Amino acid sequence: MRQEIGETGGGLRRGGSLVAKDARHVLHPWADLSALGGQGSLMVCEAQGVEVMDSAGRKYLDAIGGMWCVTVGYGRPELIDAMQAQARRMPYFTPFADVANEPAAELAALLAELSPGDLNRVHFTTCGSTAVESAVRIAHLYFASRGRPAKRHVLSRVNAYHGSTYLAASLSGKEADRTRFHYETEWVHHLENPGFDPDDAPLSASERLGQLIDGMEAAIADIGPENIACFIAEPVLASGGVLIPPPGYHQATRELCRRHDILYISDEVVTGFGRVGHFFASEAKFGIVPDMVVTAKGLTSGYQPLGAVLISDHIAGTLTESADPAKPVFSNGFTYSGHPVACATAIANIDVMQREDICGHVRDVGPYFVERLRELRNSPLVSAVRGDHLMACVECQVPGETGPTARNQALAGRVDAYCEKAGLLVRPFENLCIMSPPLVITKDEIDRIVAIMTESLARAEHDLRAGEIC
Amino acid sequence: MRQEIGETGGGLRRGGSLVAKDARHVLHPWADLSALGGQGSLMVCEAQGVEVMDSAGRKYLDAIGGMWCVTVGYGRPELIDAMQAQARRMPYFTPFADVANEPAAELAALLAELSPGDLNRVHFTTCGSTAVESAVRIAHLYFASRGRPAKRHVLSRVNAYHGSTYLAASLSGKEADRTRFHYETEWVHHLENPGFDPDDAPLSASERLGQLIDGMEAAIADIGPENIACFIAEPVLASGGVLIPPPGYHQATRELCRRHDILYISDEVVTGFGRVGHFFASEAKFGIVPDMVVTAKGLTSGYQPLGAVLISDHIAGTLTESADPAKPVFSNGFTYSGHPVACATAIANIDVMQREDICGHVRDVGPYFVERLRELRNSPLVSAVRGDHLMACVECQVPGETGPTARNQALAGRVDAYCEKAGLLVRPFENLCIMSPPLVITKDEIDRIVAIMTESLARAEHDLRAGEIC
Ligand SMILES: Cc1ncc(COP(=O)(O)O)c(C=O)c1O
Ligand SMILES: Cc1ncc(COP(=O)(O)O)c(C=O)c1O
Repeated sequence: MRQEIGETGGGLRRGGSLVAKDARHVLHPWADLSALGGQGSLMVCEAQGVEVMDSAGRKYLDAIGGMWCVTVGYGRPELIDAMQAQARRMPYFTPFADVANEPAAELAALLAELSPGDLNRVHFTTCGSTAVESAVRIAHLYFASRGRPAKRHVLSRVNAYHGSTYLAASLSGKEADRTRFHYETEWVHHLENPGFDPDDAPLSASERLGQLIDGMEAAIADIGPENIACFIAEPVLASGGVLIPPPGYHQATRELCRRHDILYISDEVVTGFGRVGHFFASEAKFGIVPDMVVTAKGLTSGYQPLGAVLISDHIAGTLTESADPAKPVFSNGFTYSGHPVACATAIANIDVMQREDICGHVRDVGPYFVERLRELRNSPLVSAVRGDHLMACVECQVPGETGPTARNQALAGRVDAYCEKAGLLVRPFENLCIMSPPLVITKDEIDRIVAIMTESLARAEHDLRAGEIC
Repeated sequence: MRQEIGETGGGLRRGGSLVAKDARHVLHPWADLSALGGQGSLMVCEAQGVEVMDSAGRKYLDAIGGMWCVTVGYGRPELIDAMQAQARRMPYFTPFADVANEPAAELAALLAELSPGDLNRVHFTTCGSTAVESAVRIAHLYFASRGRPAKRHVLSRVNAYHGSTYLAASLSGKEADRTRFHYETEWVHHLENPGFDPDDAPLSASERLGQLIDGMEAAIADIGPENIACFIAEPVLASGGVLIPPPGYHQATRELCRRHDILYISDEVVTGFGRVGHFFASEAKFGIVPDMVVTAKGLTSGYQPLGAVLISDHIAGTLTESADPAKPVFSNGFTYSGHPVACATAIANIDVMQREDICGHVRDVGPYFVERLRELRNSPLVSAVRGDHLMACVECQVPGETGPTARNQALAGRVDAYCEKAGLLVRPFENLCIMSPPLVITKDEIDRIVAIMTESLARAEHDLRAGEIC
């Protein structure tokens, strides 16, 4: 989706008055600022099942699931009907203080049921970033309520992605995203990237785990546990490049946090809602119960903007017991917290997921997806394939040249562009092609993805040989 | 909506399994932490026109417009149909980089048309807070791109409200909201509350204006203009208590910003979309063209979560021309930026507003609303009535006792509770009853609001005399 090939590839992106309006008036997230206004966009207009269609009528298999989020696929009447029915009945009313609405109450109870441990209290937000912000702020309030306001530093990790508000962007640790914006650095710290690829590791998994945990212990000692409020972690680092920590990492970091009275926030914006085969991955896959879980994206299958923080009864209880008698107000939340239309859509989404056992389907086709993608390592351009069920990435490189060099990025961009031409959308990041298809994807559709990727890699290899990629 | 009266008032809030689920599982924005889980909520279930209905079937005239946002009223088929049609056609696809969708492109073009000056570039977000965050971050990027990264401090004002993410909460200046959360204080500064009430002012408007501008100049000199990126201001401070600056304030602050190369961000989350009679108030009412305008709430009449920053061509041009050649990426934005369903709803909302000339209607009934409310000053409990078209507040006090004392807050709470009993919802804040009805409100409905307020004040006066308010 990043670059054009030859003369015909970009045709559909030019002309057409909506494409012109977009170029003239929209500042897209992650836009190329040097090309602002000059570039035509891929205008996606229609969608059904696992396919989307652009303004020229071209269809694409959507291997990125909207953006890690369209889990039940496009065009689901159940979700659309629930959305419409709630909008008719009551499209909005304030969620502040002691005013409630039905879908938010119902959804909160459902989330409490689906989530691990005593995560029974839900604070709704509008997206992943606002949920991350709220989680960290709650950690601050928790310790300040216990008389420890200095305990406010946050541990995150290199290559993490947690959103793009000021604090969420500061927590994120992707070097590619650190630009000339301002970032919080006084009380935000980044531990090492914990990704471990057994195919390509100088160390054994347990050696690498030891290193990572030693590093985390050293950082805690350095900052001082008395200054640290929380650790925030994606179970699998998603947009940083599908980075999977070595076995035992989640439990060891959980234990370290417990020992030092540091709250553990699991960012399940991507891993939640079935992406790796469970409604929440923390306990079901990684054997830990966090103090808070952040969710968004798959919560509504992307049909509606919605985020949430799930909070332990322990934390909620502490907030209540230690509430400031002079000012017991929880001064955090949003106009659209628990938006009734968004919550009604989320309930319908959960209903579909349960009725069709979509988590079971992911546990079935997920391993097949990763296994088939791993065949792509036969191409000399593929240096690694990593994945966990329906989140995966293919790393491209010019043979002998490692990392996200300009040429490797151009190479991955070329693969990506050939995929687009052949009717497959993947998500380019540096020299990676990232994939996170709708969870309803079938084995046949997985075969189609692999076939197009194989063909696109072959074409890129031809271009590379012809000296066209530099 | 804050407290119960006698035995019957709270009945509808207890029992009913959804009320129980809400109490057990939801952490509401601005919840009373000391009562978490123990309190039944007002469960609002249905809504039509300017009325909402609770779970016991009681109807209320909604004098707060959802929460400053349900401008075209509830149950509008135009908005619901647009929402549903877009959800069917294409409920979501990524807005990142060079991927666009139709409703976002169309809405951006509409906003560019409706907004003043050269505010022609739109960055979509999910709510007001994320739009405020994005605006300030854009100010940071703008100066850093021009080689002045130290120019990153922000001027806000006491009693402002800008949202509740870490940075937005830090920009907000309501003392009541400053709790044990952590706030940014190194580079965020609060100027004096600029509210000016001609009924109750020791100084003339021009004297007060002089003070405010002198104060702002002194603050700029103190911090150093070379360190200040932007000034963020609501044209009328809304949830801080409908605080209206003296005439000339907007132009004088705009001029000061221009002189010191400080970007002027107008937060029109409340004042935009017709609340004071225009799509945007900055130029039409206050004669200024800001560098950025933040909008949300009325943008979709609250039917969908959506926010946006409108950015001047000057800023957008600078970002393009000075883009970092090594990293030209605009690394800001959200999964749900420009959500197609939310944008389609906003387009339908604008369409209704234009077709029915809702801004014209507000300019017609707005002065009547304020004038009629000002009659309430006949009650000995009302110390002030302030308003601008369809945003207004009534300040309550025990005769002789000024400010938000505990007793004055209890008094306003009593008035509020009697209104609720009589079928009118107003928004309590400290010792104020704040009102912002749907913009389609009629003069008859305004009369009903005033009649219920009058009666509720009389009842509260009786309780006060009987020694029941302390
Ligand atoms: C793990 C993770 N956390 C948080 C976010 C931020 O979510 P949003 O874009 O909805 O603010 C994302 C978005 O991609 C994410 O992948
Ligand atoms: C003036 C103003 N700005 C920003 C916000 C924040 O908007 P949101 O609650 O959608 O984050 C509000 C919310 O009330 C507001 O009144």
